[in-house]
Amino acid sequence: MTADSKLEKIAEIKGEILKRVRPTAEEKIKLESVRKSIMDDIVRISQEQGQHGILPLSVGSAERDTWLSGSHDIDVFISYPEDIPFDEFHRKSRKILTEMAKTGDSWEDRHSEHPYIHIRKEGFEVDLVPCFRVKSGACIKSSVDRTPFHCAYIKENIRGLEEDVLLLKQFMKGVGVYGSEVRTGGFSGYLTEILVICYGGFESVLEHAALWKYGVVIDLAAHQSLKHEHPLVVVDPTDPKRNVAAALSLTKFARFIDRTRSFMKYPSADYFKHKEYAPMSADEFEKQMAARGTEMIGVSFQTPSAAEDTLYPQLFRMELSLEELFLRNEFTAVNTFSWSEESGESIVFIELLSAELPPLQKRFGPPVWNANNAETFCRKYKTSPDTFSFAIENEKYVAEVPRKYKTAESLIDDLILKETALGRHIRDSVKNGYRILRKEDIMKIQNENFWKFINEKLTAQIEP
Amino acid sequence: MTADSKLEKIAEIKGEILKRVRPTAEEKIKLESVRKSIMDDIVRISQEQGQHGILPLSVGSAERDTWLSGSHDIDVFISYPEDIPFDEFHRKSRKILTEMAKTGDSWEDRHSEHPYIHIRKEGFEVDLVPCFRVKSGACIKSSVDRTPFHCAYIKENIRGLEEDVLLLKQFMKGVGVYGSEVRTGGFSGYLTEILVICYGGFESVLEHAALWKYGVVIDLAAHQSLKHEHPLVVVDPTDPKRNVAAALSLTKFARFIDRTRSFMKYPSADYFKHKEYAPMSADEFEKQMAARGTEMIGVSFQTPSAAEDTLYPQLFRMELSLEELFLRNEFTAVNTFSWSEESGESIVFIELLSAELPPLQKRFGPPVWNANNAETFCRKYKTSPDTFSFAIENEKYVAEVPRKYKTAESLIDDLILKETALGRHIRDSVKNGYRILRKEDIMKIQNENFWKFINEKLTAQIEP
Repeated sequence: MTADSKLEKIAEIKGEILKRVRPTAEEKIKLESVRKSIMDDIVRISQEQGQHGILPLSVGSAERDTWLSGSHDIDVFISYPEDIPFDEFHRKSRKILTEMAKTGDSWEDRHSEHPYIHIRKEGFEVDLVPCFRVKSGACIKSSVDRTPFHCAYIKENIRGLEEDVLLLKQFMKGVGVYGSEVRTGGFSGYLTEILVICYGGFESVLEHAALWKYGVVIDLAAHQSLKHEHPLVVVDPTDPKRNVAAALSLTKFARFIDRTRSFMKYPSADYFKHKEYAPMSADEFEKQMAARGTEMIGVSFQTPSAAEDTLYPQLFRMELSLEELFLRNEFTAVNTFSWSEESGESIVFIELLSAELPPLQKRFGPPVWNANNAETFCRKYKTSPDTFSFAIENEKYVAEVPRKYKTAESLIDDLILKETALGRHIRDSVKNGYRILRKEDIMKIQNENFWKFINEKLTAQIEP
Repeated sequence: MTADSKLEKIAEIKGEILKRVRPTAEEKIKLESVRKSIMDDIVRISQEQGQHGILPLSVGSAERDTWLSGSHDIDVFISYPEDIPFDEFHRKSRKILTEMAKTGDSWEDRHSEHPYIHIRKEGFEVDLVPCFRVKSGACIKSSVDRTPFHCAYIKENIRGLEEDVLLLKQFMKGVGVYGSEVRTGGFSGYLTEILVICYGGFESVLEHAALWKYGVVIDLAAHQSLKHEHPLVVVDPTDPKRNVAAALSLTKFARFIDRTRSFMKYPSADYFKHKEYAPMSADEFEKQMAARGTEMIGVSFQTPSAAEDTLYPQLFRMELSLEELFLRNEFTAVNTFSWSEESGESIVFIELLSAELPPLQKRFGPPVWNANNAETFCRKYKTSPDTFSFAIENEKYVAEVPRKYKTAESLIDDLILKETALGRHIRDSVKNGYRILRKEDIMKIQNENFWKFINEKLTAQIEP
């Protein structure tokens, strides 16, 4: 493909994609009307409650015209004067949220440390978040106080580039790197917008990203004030100490580089469409596992009731911790991954080269000149009738002894609570009971999403 | 045991051992007569051949009264003036050795780079070694020229400590650390003598050795001139650049420390008696292997005709190299060891946790930002119909592909000549043919010494 025909091809793809992702006039009118009614409700309710100095702020992508057609997210912040005390802020904002909840078709309390509710209204998903109106993003009182500054910064700088943001968001969705929840570890909307502003447009972001390496720094305002240990550092224009890309995982960063490079070589509309894996059948799973010859072990427990962004770090830590436990005991892990269903079961999987080890284990002791430890080691193993052999290799004692954990199951049963680093929520759940799943148990799981997930894990392809 | 009763006990043991290892008057007379006749023969033959300036030098432990009863070793050097050229030295010395060979009951040419023969005479094992009479151990012309200086140094300094040397040598034999051949990697006679001179006696050597750590330096003449990377550094009093303990392996060094510490705690005459392992029966071997659950693989080939000190380093290197080859291919080695029979077969053994691996192998590619290597890796694996999955993990591409070497045998057959570091002699022999031995093949071996060796390897105990 010549450079010219490639440019033509990209222009053509962009047109095609924009037709799909640009919100229609009708969608815009509808969203505008819902948003206005929410803002009005907040003003009305705060007045009825005699609360003064309250300002509703629209802060989402809807506000800056960078929302994708078909998405129905509205973010409205309820801002309080900076100087009111925290307890007053909590008390007063709860009062408003209680009334606002009634204006929705349904609602959920989503507060963790910070108060906040989610309501559904006329088909829209609305986050209502109280915050402080601070002077700048660098002197916030609560973590959400930054958002209005982000929104203002983007509104001021994005003019004319809104469609480039739409294209980049859709591209990222297509290649599976969009979304800043911990579970995904991808790019946030704000990060996408900053990239477009920085590089000046959709193609320019892709051209640059194709050449990224670990440790790229993007500092729009040239005011970075801290060193970060992240794959990508994008200094927040509204707060120089913050890396906008702090939540981006190395895997998603690398995937984006790979996909942009590939797209720039062979442009195609396929990149904008996220690959859906079909559910794998239990029989196909059995066939796959036979072909792999590995052993798949799952540890299943009741999903703790915790926010996803609390739960997933704990699941990831459990994967790592299990892998280390197995490694310490001479089992070799090929893969680990986690499945979790809200108010259902969570399963941490570990795929092993073998789930069984021979009875003999070689244990290395201390160097001979470490007299005290040497005595302990010799007392333990040298005279034991079970010891196969006891010798010195290089500077160390070495005993061949019966292996304590010959099977993956015995290892998990004995040490899952003793020798793995489990997060608080998962630890409590595992204490209440867990099951070890082998292939036969896994095959019994009836859940379409689970089998899509398994298909993706076992047969992943980076496509197109 | 009180300190006093311990000292009494040690004194008693020493007396008992000395009775066994002190040569009898009869033995001394016999040895003296054979040695004298050899020295006389050298003088006579050199005169008959018109060679002038030749001096026979008696240099062995016999010369310094530190030989153990029952040993029948005599070392006689045939010294030439320092200034004769190498080719003349070789020609002339060969003439004398040719005649000397005829004075023995049998003889062997043992020269490698240096000319030297071994003769058997009236029950004695005699080494006849030509050398240059240089001015000091620091300006030798050939490596053997040092020996006369060693002998002179010991004779001058050992007076009154001869029996301590006998005790130390016998102790070292008993605990399996005596002998400086590469195969053994233990203490040489000269090293033993230096230690006795340094510490002043048998018990004192043991007391000090019990506290040794890696890197002890012993410098009798306080003239060390080089740093050595060895567990034990004993500066040669006759050549400051040389470490007398350079050939001592870390394992034997550590074993000596362990055994001395143990002896000083619980003195016993058992330490002076080398443990002989009984031959293991093939049935017992089968039982042992079943209990261990591991897989024993041997690579057998014709023992190359090379001196032991040339062959053993090559065998050790092959063990290490095979272990690395297996590790690179995800097999886990528990032990390696080598058996070698002169003019018979040599076998390098590797004991594995498992001799078989599952069909799936996970291969990590380059980081995504390494564009050229990335392309090569993707081309190779991404589109291959055999690939199970292709993904990105952290910064790297990772492909799950069919494993090339699922069995230890296929790995050896494909790569033993391509990807192991084999010494010249072993490489030539393996090229000529090798066999892979499994348990059933090993069980067919008919050789008592082999089965003693296997018994020691599988059931080693540090005793007493």
